[in-house]
Amino acid sequence: MGLTTAQKEILDKAIEALHTRVFHAQYPEHPSPAIYGETADEEGKNAFKQLRKGKFEELQQSGEEAWVGEEHSPYFDEPVGTTYPQFSNDVLLERAEKAFHSWRKVSKEDRAAVLIDSLERFSKRFFENAYATMHTTGQGYMMAFQASGPHAADRALEAVAAGYEELGRFPEKAVWEKPMGKYNLTINKEWRAVPKGIGLVIGCSTFPTWNSVPGVYANMITGNSVIVKPHPGAVLPMAIVVAEIRNALRSAGFDPEVCQLAVDTKDKPIAKELAEHPKVKLVDFTGNSEFGSYLESLPKAVFTEKTGVNSMILDSTDNLDKMIQNITFSVALYSGQMCTAPQNFFIPEGGVKTPEGVVSFDEVAQKIVEFTNGLIDNPKAGPFVAGTIQNPLTAERTTSAAKSIGGKVRLETRSIEQSVPYFKNARTQTPTYIELTAADKDKFSKEMFGPIAFLIKTKDTRESVALAREMAETYGAISCGAYTTDEEMKEYIADEMSLAATPVSFNLTGQIFVNQNAAFSDFHVTGGNPAGNASFTNPDYVNRRFTWVGMREPA
Amino acid sequence: MGLTTAQKEILDKAIEALHTRVFHAQYPEHPSPAIYGETADEEGKNAFKQLRKGKFEELQQSGEEAWVGEEHSPYFDEPVGTTYPQFSNDVLLERAEKAFHSWRKVSKEDRAAVLIDSLERFSKRFFENAYATMHTTGQGYMMAFQASGPHAADRALEAVAAGYEELGRFPEKAVWEKPMGKYNLTINKEWRAVPKGIGLVIGCSTFPTWNSVPGVYANMITGNSVIVKPHPGAVLPMAIVVAEIRNALRSAGFDPEVCQLAVDTKDKPIAKELAEHPKVKLVDFTGNSEFGSYLESLPKAVFTEKTGVNSMILDSTDNLDKMIQNITFSVALYSGQMCTAPQNFFIPEGGVKTPEGVVSFDEVAQKIVEFTNGLIDNPKAGPFVAGTIQNPLTAERTTSAAKSIGGKVRLETRSIEQSVPYFKNARTQTPTYIELTAADKDKFSKEMFGPIAFLIKTKDTRESVALAREMAETYGAISCGAYTTDEEMKEYIADEMSLAATPVSFNLTGQIFVNQNAAFSDFHVTGGNPAGNASFTNPDYVNRRFTWVGMREPA
Repeated sequence: MGLTTAQKEILDKAIEALHTRVFHAQYPEHPSPAIYGETADEEGKNAFKQLRKGKFEELQQSGEEAWVGEEHSPYFDEPVGTTYPQFSNDVLLERAEKAFHSWRKVSKEDRAAVLIDSLERFSKRFFENAYATMHTTGQGYMMAFQASGPHAADRALEAVAAGYEELGRFPEKAVWEKPMGKYNLTINKEWRAVPKGIGLVIGCSTFPTWNSVPGVYANMITGNSVIVKPHPGAVLPMAIVVAEIRNALRSAGFDPEVCQLAVDTKDKPIAKELAEHPKVKLVDFTGNSEFGSYLESLPKAVFTEKTGVNSMILDSTDNLDKMIQNITFSVALYSGQMCTAPQNFFIPEGGVKTPEGVVSFDEVAQKIVEFTNGLIDNPKAGPFVAGTIQNPLTAERTTSAAKSIGGKVRLETRSIEQSVPYFKNARTQTPTYIELTAADKDKFSKEMFGPIAFLIKTKDTRESVALAREMAETYGAISCGAYTTDEEMKEYIADEMSLAATPVSFNLTGQIFVNQNAAFSDFHVTGGNPAGNASFTNPDYVNRRFTWVGMREPA
Repeated sequence: MGLTTAQKEILDKAIEALHTRVFHAQYPEHPSPAIYGETADEEGKNAFKQLRKGKFEELQQSGEEAWVGEEHSPYFDEPVGTTYPQFSNDVLLERAEKAFHSWRKVSKEDRAAVLIDSLERFSKRFFENAYATMHTTGQGYMMAFQASGPHAADRALEAVAAGYEELGRFPEKAVWEKPMGKYNLTINKEWRAVPKGIGLVIGCSTFPTWNSVPGVYANMITGNSVIVKPHPGAVLPMAIVVAEIRNALRSAGFDPEVCQLAVDTKDKPIAKELAEHPKVKLVDFTGNSEFGSYLESLPKAVFTEKTGVNSMILDSTDNLDKMIQNITFSVALYSGQMCTAPQNFFIPEGGVKTPEGVVSFDEVAQKIVEFTNGLIDNPKAGPFVAGTIQNPLTAERTTSAAKSIGGKVRLETRSIEQSVPYFKNARTQTPTYIELTAADKDKFSKEMFGPIAFLIKTKDTRESVALAREMAETYGAISCGAYTTDEEMKEYIADEMSLAATPVSFNLTGQIFVNQNAAFSDFHVTGGNPAGNASFTNPDYVNRRFTWVGMREPA
């Protein structure tokens, strides 16, 4: 079978990008009619409507015990309506094990071909996936299209490329010849990249494809079979992906059970039992730290993204308004429900230095309020940037934050104006900003998932940095933003945060936000602090999914 | 500073060998006067005698609280006599942390230069090290010279090369430019390979340098500082290595505390407390499975080699005598005290097929006894191959094996004739072979460290393979030998054992033994079964010692 010329080119470009780390995107992120077709959006919307009508049958996973589904649209405040076939863990594992034994013998070229084909198939459904993502995660349309579609596909391709490259790191065979004096000792050797077995991928409710496809594709390129268990609140996007993976497998003549969808309900979760099963050798997880840390303790190859407490260090800036505009957008984006959203804003009591003079803490806080309101109240921007709140717990955490935290409330949370299209019944909460001091560590050291941000008054920037580093090292951090015009301070911040294994985005203004990270270039989660033990996509991410085993025999 | 031309060549050759995996050795393994000098052996012997006189002062680790040493020569049955400076854990950690903060900023070129220089310095002491190794581990002279000296140095160089290459995997800087339609979004990015902190390397009593230098050198090339804690029964070889590492550091103008020796005693061990300390971020361990598995549970980067139950599958052979000669040598070599020594010999009840006909189980057993006695009783070979027993527990386990195991004793253990030079007071035990059946799983599923081997009668080769695989998957295995002339059976064995992440050596005869594995070519321990979680030296071995962290800023 092998890779087609087109697929080889896609793969080679991806591998090259991994090494150069310059901009690369295989899947265009703009939902542009020029790129995707004039009717693509409409077709996608209609396809999604069809999926809402009942059984998601395209997986062709047979012998189901029941059909289940409990997704609820945070926009429409009604069930999504799709149901999925459900199977016992025993059946899933039996199928996954059988598929493993055929898939492990497939060449890396053939695996890569199937996987790239599946991404091409998925790319034809980006619009359908956008609506499915909106109405499960609550994201705004643009993020739902971009992050859940082309960006996720890029991250999947990244995993395929990294895995493909690592599988070719060592020769399949070599002749080892040692001079022994009177003769040469000649040994024929071979090296096999042996996959580990069945992988389980546990998804989250906010980024169902983006956070799960790297593990799915990394498992598959390295020869493992995979059971995909999405969060019960956001199944449909991954169901679409799994359906297309199975189509690609079938189309190439391979067993579709290499990739299965496993659904559960909030009341009867299956993740723990599956993860603990001795036949499951790999676990990918995105979710809360408690369960994630438990999974890390299992004797398996575990890859986690857990919770983190992300900081922003405000020291000095060339352009105050641009800085404020950027950071307020970061908090508002998808209502703070991104693992890369900033929460703790460390601001010196002496204020932030600008070319026009020092801007006091109070002025900075006021501007933050001003820009946030300006964004939220702009009916053409705010609602679509903020999206909706994925689940009631997050909404409640946000509305009760002021009371539960204490501190001076600089900006109260509110709901978005209901006259905006799509938002009539939507669950929304706008950003709340609460003022604290450096002494309030117990209050700001927890991840407050949602549009909740703290303006924390520190003695000076050095204290800001020390706190940001401590948060990252102790509680984990996935992103960090810093604004400084002082080169020495910049290096100091970079060095301190690097010791906390936390990437820093400096002086972001304009259309680049700390929340964002690009496939092939930015490592998402470094794996070096408590926010997670794995990184999209460093060599470890793929190397831990198989074992190099050597065979040898004298010639 | 940088690498000298000679050092760059050493490094480049090593990196190339890692990829081609053909024969490569940087340090000549033959203790030949032609290579090392006419007086090298004599000088080494004298230098060792000097070291026995008292304090090992060349580390120049100052402010010691005491001098301790309890090594005992299994040859002379008397204390070695060397003492080492002892420090509190707090002092060791304080020094290691300070050294970390300077070492982490040293370029990979400069680190590689220091490390290669240290190996060159160590290579001048290979003979001294051979005697130090003999009189702590009990190894025969040839193994003590080769394994503890040039082979260990090759493994150390392997780790340096692997680390050096991985550190250069991603660019230090790149310009990321994304087309945004009307303009390009240009971000300057950099990637830092951030080491984790203080590494602790816990040594074993049988291979003090060979099993420890990979972790020491992998830690150091990736920018971590390291505390080396040898087994109290075998300190001197690593003391010599650490002394030369410190000399190389000093000579290049770096802080010698990047590498410290930490000694303890059997009664007051320090490994657990050090390993648990929050400042220790990496732990390398060779030793028993219980402690090793405990260390693996700590939230650190842990690299273990634990116990394993190695099997041999006897199915068919072209040359029975050559096979028997080879496998009996493997059991006798260093009296079965190698982690790669075979223990379980699976032999079908129908016997082993040869061109001359089937050789019965009994005949195979008899030949094993015959060849073993022939080897042991040859005063020019046996004692020097077998060496001595490193510690009393191993001797006791061997002498009481027949009684504790039950089963039919095919060959009793005995002591080596005392008239052989060096062996007058030596603690020796020769191989014992005990016959069991496949039903005796509870007896042969434990690692019986020492010259104890089981001849296990199975229904057929398929049962042999199933048991060998089960042992490896459940209890761990580091080596596996198989003799078969049937190509289909060979692939079957290779495939089954690969699923147990166990390398197989097929049909070894002549001067290559299952116990042996070569730097740059054979992965020692795959990391994929309970015998250990780390492999000398796959990419994981170095990549887990540092974290890639990205910094970015708009241009």
